Amino acid sequence: MKIAVLPGDGIGTEIVAEAVKVLQALELPLELEYAPVGGAAFEASGHPLPEATLKLAREADAVLFGAVGDWKYDTLERALRPEQAILGLRKHLGLFANFRPAICYEQLVGASSLKPELVAGLDILIIRELTGDIYFGQPRGRRVATDGHFPGAEEAFDTMRYSRPEIERIAHVAFQAARKRNKKVTSVDKANVLETFQLWKDVVTEVGQQYPDVTLEHMYVDNAAMQLVKAPKKFDVIVTGNMFGDILSDEASMLTGSIGMLPSASLNAKSQGLYEPSHGSAPDIAGQGIANPLATILSAAMMLRFSLNQPEAAERIETAVKQVLAQGLRTPDIWSAGTTKVGTAQMGDAVVRAL
Amino acid sequence: MKIAVLPGDGIGTEIVAEAVKVLQALELPLELEYAPVGGAAFEASGHPLPEATLKLAREADAVLFGAVGDWKYDTLERALRPEQAILGLRKHLGLFANFRPAICYEQLVGASSLKPELVAGLDILIIRELTGDIYFGQPRGRRVATDGHFPGAEEAFDTMRYSRPEIERIAHVAFQAARKRNKKVTSVDKANVLETFQLWKDVVTEVGQQYPDVTLEHMYVDNAAMQLVKAPKKFDVIVTGNMFGDILSDEASMLTGSIGMLPSASLNAKSQGLYEPSHGSAPDIAGQGIANPLATILSAAMMLRFSLNQPEAAERIETAVKQVLAQGLRTPDIWSAGTTKVGTAQMGDAVVRAL
Ligand SMILES: CC(C)[C@H](C(=O)O)[C@@H](O)C(=O)O
Ligand SMILES: CC(C)[C@H](C(=O)O)[C@@H](O)C(=O)O
Repeated sequence: MKIAVLPGDGIGTEIVAEAVKVLQALELPLELEYAPVGGAAFEASGHPLPEATLKLAREADAVLFGAVGDWKYDTLERALRPEQAILGLRKHLGLFANFRPAICYEQLVGASSLKPELVAGLDILIIRELTGDIYFGQPRGRRVATDGHFPGAEEAFDTMRYSRPEIERIAHVAFQAARKRNKKVTSVDKANVLETFQLWKDVVTEVGQQYPDVTLEHMYVDNAAMQLVKAPKKFDVIVTGNMFGDILSDEASMLTGSIGMLPSASLNAKSQGLYEPSHGSAPDIAGQGIANPLATILSAAMMLRFSLNQPEAAERIETAVKQVLAQGLRTPDIWSAGTTKVGTAQMGDAVVRAL
Repeated sequence: MKIAVLPGDGIGTEIVAEAVKVLQALELPLELEYAPVGGAAFEASGHPLPEATLKLAREADAVLFGAVGDWKYDTLERALRPEQAILGLRKHLGLFANFRPAICYEQLVGASSLKPELVAGLDILIIRELTGDIYFGQPRGRRVATDGHFPGAEEAFDTMRYSRPEIERIAHVAFQAARKRNKKVTSVDKANVLETFQLWKDVVTEVGQQYPDVTLEHMYVDNAAMQLVKAPKKFDVIVTGNMFGDILSDEASMLTGSIGMLPSASLNAKSQGLYEPSHGSAPDIAGQGIANPLATILSAAMMLRFSLNQPEAAERIETAVKQVLAQGLRTPDIWSAGTTKVGTAQMGDAVVRAL
């Protein structure tokens, strides 16, 4: 089983090193191959997603991804910025199904911005379509406006679009995931304004008829942004498009108080996947050995389950993570009085011991 | 001074009646003219925004709007649904600047989902562009895809677009508003992915140079959705496009615990404006006399200030609202133990007395 390891920028290297430690401790026949990505790759070769890195990712069974980005690349032209690497990987590998759990860990209830009773026991799954929508729709660019409020003025534009089969396949993913959980899907749209999301709503409704055991509800995106704050536990699986999913999954992860602990998986039709923490590259704390490696370690667990067909190994990791939390070990981002503050490597070592 | 009064659907009639009571108690030379809108107008005349209603709105100095919408219209074709009325009014009156304050009232801190220390004293202003973006961009519709993931499949599409002058004028509105507040503007974009919002960011930066006394920061929309939950008090004025503003302003209003109390104003270049509560038509509680009229009453105050040039009258209303809250009067949505539960009309009467 071949894993492409792409640590990236900022804390990426540090957190991926701990996930690799954990993977190696499992004594499975895993072949790990490293490649640069993001700013690190730009420095080395002038492009955030070099051909060799993309080739490695394509050939691997799974990609373990750290994080990309740093303020110092903000002035580069868009095509050379670190985040193009992640967009390019999604596109070229066809990773259309993004899984982002928002879980509030029992021991971290107090770390949430929300009142404890609203988040204790929270366990929702956001499924975001990841290769369509306004992220990739053509045409896009700048031009002179020929109509609208200011004909003749410079304007910029993008195209939002979804085709029926794109919506069908992500809807199936959502209903199937809900079957293994609490059997409820909330499809988030803006059908009252957007043609794209009227089709979305229609198609999700049709697909839902094949899953009579799963309850389907529809919610406008503005209302979903409210309900996530008001009563997040009412959700089970949320399925939505690329743009709305970007916004809502970040909002949801922040509610949990555990963003340093939330993994993510992005899968294609062949179950090849890219696994990365839900948080970013945090350049402000890079190199200090204090970043929380648990989101990346839990992403490695998702990788074992979804792409490498090793559910027992995945569970061993997840149980080990719960143990270190129960032991009171905390990196600074989740530390609170009465618990033991540890660094990135100590946390990784503790998970290995708990295995 | 002529005011078009459009109560609309659901609780709209009840809450607007109280705002009218308050306006009339001011003894100003106000001419009020009523017209149907939304579902009510559809029932009466087959269209949610009849010509006569639009004409009245155009000719008035300001529009006092209740709310529109009911589940029973969900199956109508899009052009006939109640929300088309509000979209049509925005478009035809050119109401490009939407002001949505998110204020956490001292007495309602406990009603927020967020921990009290995160929201006590919260006072942010979201300025949402309201006549552009993907809400109105052409072309849009359905067609057969000729490229993308599934050429030949049915697809739906919409166009996101902003022209330079559209961005300039809303940026000026934001910087001028910030000057009267805490002198900070956060411009929310998705410039790392969208051409439209790269132009947005560039133009807001340029306009910002004319306001050296105001601090400008840029934030991606996904991060903004997180920061609103994590540390909302760090914001002062948020300025963003129509779509992102729809999502973020609803998220922000929910944080306050006071959505029943938040007014909104939508202005055009001539300071004509439409004033409406931030909440919706709440068909589930319509006709019961329990809806909170304060958001509508405070919207009437905004109307006096922004469109009718009556700042003293506006302040009288705002002070009266604070007084009834201090007296402990609460409609059910904001009631808590130790306060006095009142209905819609009692609340309106109390504000009139406090004037
Ligand atoms: C870096 C950026 C392009 C990306 C996105 O918008 O998808 C990120 O926010 C994410 O959610 O993975
Ligand atoms: C009713 C709907 C079309 C509208 C919008 O999306 O703008 C509403 O959500 C709002 O924010 O006023």
